[in-house]
Amino acid sequence: MTIVTLTTDFGFSDGFVGIMKGVILGRAPDVRVVDVTHGIPPQDVLAGALTLRHAVPYFPAGTIHVGVVDPGVGTARRPLCVETAAGFLVGPDNGLFSLAAPADAIRRIVHLTDERFFLSPRSATFHGRDVFAPVAAALATSTPPAALGSIVEDMHRLDVPEPSVDGRAMHGQVIYVDHFGNLVTNVTSGALSKSADVSIRLRAAQLRGIAPSYGTARSGELVAVVGSWGLLEIAVRDGSARDRLGAGVGEPVVVET
Amino acid sequence: MTIVTLTTDFGFSDGFVGIMKGVILGRAPDVRVVDVTHGIPPQDVLAGALTLRHAVPYFPAGTIHVGVVDPGVGTARRPLCVETAAGFLVGPDNGLFSLAAPADAIRRIVHLTDERFFLSPRSATFHGRDVFAPVAAALATSTPPAALGSIVEDMHRLDVPEPSVDGRAMHGQVIYVDHFGNLVTNVTSGALSKSADVSIRLRAAQLRGIAPSYGTARSGELVAVVGSWGLLEIAVRDGSARDRLGAGVGEPVVVET
Amino acid sequence: MTIVTLTTDFGFSDGFVGIMKGVILGRAPDVRVVDVTHGIPPQDVLAGALTLRHAVPYFPAGTIHVGVVDPGVGTARRPLCVETAAGFLVGPDNGLFSLAAPADAIRRIVHLTDERFFLSPRSATFHGRDVFAPVAAALATSTPPAALGSIVEDMHRLDVPEPSVDGRAMHGQVIYVDHFGNLVTNVTSGALSKSADVSIRLRAAQLRGIAPSYGTARSGELVAVVGSWGLLEIAVRDGSARDRLGAGVGEPVVVET
Repeated sequence: MTIVTLTTDFGFSDGFVGIMKGVILGRAPDVRVVDVTHGIPPQDVLAGALTLRHAVPYFPAGTIHVGVVDPGVGTARRPLCVETAAGFLVGPDNGLFSLAAPADAIRRIVHLTDERFFLSPRSATFHGRDVFAPVAAALATSTPPAALGSIVEDMHRLDVPEPSVDGRAMHGQVIYVDHFGNLVTNVTSGALSKSADVSIRLRAAQLRGIAPSYGTARSGELVAVVGSWGLLEIAVRDGSARDRLGAGVGEPVVVET
Repeated sequence: MTIVTLTTDFGFSDGFVGIMKGVILGRAPDVRVVDVTHGIPPQDVLAGALTLRHAVPYFPAGTIHVGVVDPGVGTARRPLCVETAAGFLVGPDNGLFSLAAPADAIRRIVHLTDERFFLSPRSATFHGRDVFAPVAAALATSTPPAALGSIVEDMHRLDVPEPSVDGRAMHGQVIYVDHFGNLVTNVTSGALSKSADVSIRLRAAQLRGIAPSYGTARSGELVAVVGSWGLLEIAVRDGSARDRLGAGVGEPVVVET
Repeated sequence: MTIVTLTTDFGFSDGFVGIMKGVILGRAPDVRVVDVTHGIPPQDVLAGALTLRHAVPYFPAGTIHVGVVDPGVGTARRPLCVETAAGFLVGPDNGLFSLAAPADAIRRIVHLTDERFFLSPRSATFHGRDVFAPVAAALATSTPPAALGSIVEDMHRLDVPEPSVDGRAMHGQVIYVDHFGNLVTNVTSGALSKSADVSIRLRAAQLRGIAPSYGTARSGELVAVVGSWGLLEIAVRDGSARDRLGAGVGEPVVVET
């Protein structure tokens, strides 16, 4: 049974997501539709790209991942199907798939041009319903990707900020804030010293050492951990580091080893 | 495989929706349960009716749509099953289905009176669990609709505001605000002039022309488009027209052609 | 077809829940995954335990209920599989299952120690993905519970406040507030007098009698009802008792009969 996942910024108050599922299941009754999330902040392509990077590897090979964070809907931005070893990524060409599909993982990029696979009429404001859902259904019912349009060589890529190193100091930043208010940085676990002596500064927070888990801190205490994305994050046990420190995406972090 | 959809104002913090799914799947293990949304504003029957009007057509014929926006639960308001060419609408008789099931589309209305299809005991506060979920499961497992109760001729209908025309000016209003803060009006695409000269006023906004899509505006700019419901909406590219203009449902809009 | 339910405090903005579904469906493609809710307030084990107590009975016997409200993730708190007549409860040993699985309903408690059933490597921050999802998939694909670890005799239990009785007055408290702002107390329907003369005080509210349903009150009026959990709750018709009374969990209520 093929899985189709959905990752969007559509939120939860409207029928948009339900409509996409109706389109998919009407054309591919046997697929399993799974929500990754619809809570990507509106138009936040980077948050969508990070979410997909960390979710796609946990789905079976061959899964069809539909992503719709699409501020350019109705403009000349291309609709794409990107094929990798993990499966298919279907959505707008705006960088949303550039982290889940690094250049060396790409097998094929198809510019979705064959309108026979779209709903008709097609709106200029809701390609999730009119383009990406029916294309996902087509893929799930064994349409060869190459039949969906024309092969292209490139796709839009996001510039994700990388930490810079200055002697023993690494200068990174917060790239994502999760539901719990944990501040996820772009400092990878591999870049952290194995020694207990690492020190971390983020706004008013001055932390020493990486804790093995949130729960080793006392309730209300700030703590640095390596989170489930393999990245350094700053958290508050039983609380929110975002609220405590007043920090969000882009906030600098300095790690000294 | 039969699809059962759920559209409610139950929100996302409680187990209400999960409980309904448990009841449905316990009695009809093979159905596919699909959430349209549970984010209808509490007790907002009009928002629920608009959501169902625009979602139902995208599901396969025969789908069973359960709708629960039900401020009158436990009172004399009738529980209904409404049959149309699209399928079945199951929920309270308070206007929730009056847009998805216009008078000329109705094949049959059944007043759900046969308590054998309900859970027992039956609460007076959660008919989603005790009445509508088990009735949907009964329909999905081939119970004939007429067996569920008694045929009735009428159902409650909402008064949805219609625009009025005064010379070249059309006076409409905002009838829905979506997750992105787009202000959806009751002015249909058919009523708009095909000329580029249409002008639109809504609070401080004075717009000229209908843009083909949100994305043709500059970031932060107000724009008028025909949205995915086929209705005129006022949006802000990469932003929220609701927040920008301080407008909500009921706000007047004037369109001059 | 086996059902796996998910009840967490993961919220809706991240990919955490989608990732758990990917893990489950990758290992047990035929299960039906059902969300109970992911809107448990962060780290609120009591709210999660109440939600599970009232949801589990509506699912078929044999259902696998995964619960993750887990402030102690990564510490010495044990991961458990609790077996009852209703099915299986899989999650942390912190009281989350103590209401859904009262002592006399428990058939077996397994301390999940066999790492062959976990993802590898295993993070210290996301056992929903790395421990509980793959264990649920193992159960769903006929792994005997006893193979998952070692049998233990006890588990952590929550102290849920009980009302105290003083003559004709019962002193209870609010234990849960739902999406509608209804204040759910720990006073059971069985403890309420059948007479109409019961009087209820909660902050500024002085109510006389239990109404049969919310809808029997006038719009905006405070009303006392027995809700779908079989507990006394204070509500506002078409409004929020939480907002009206400024009350939350822990607020005292006095019932006089």
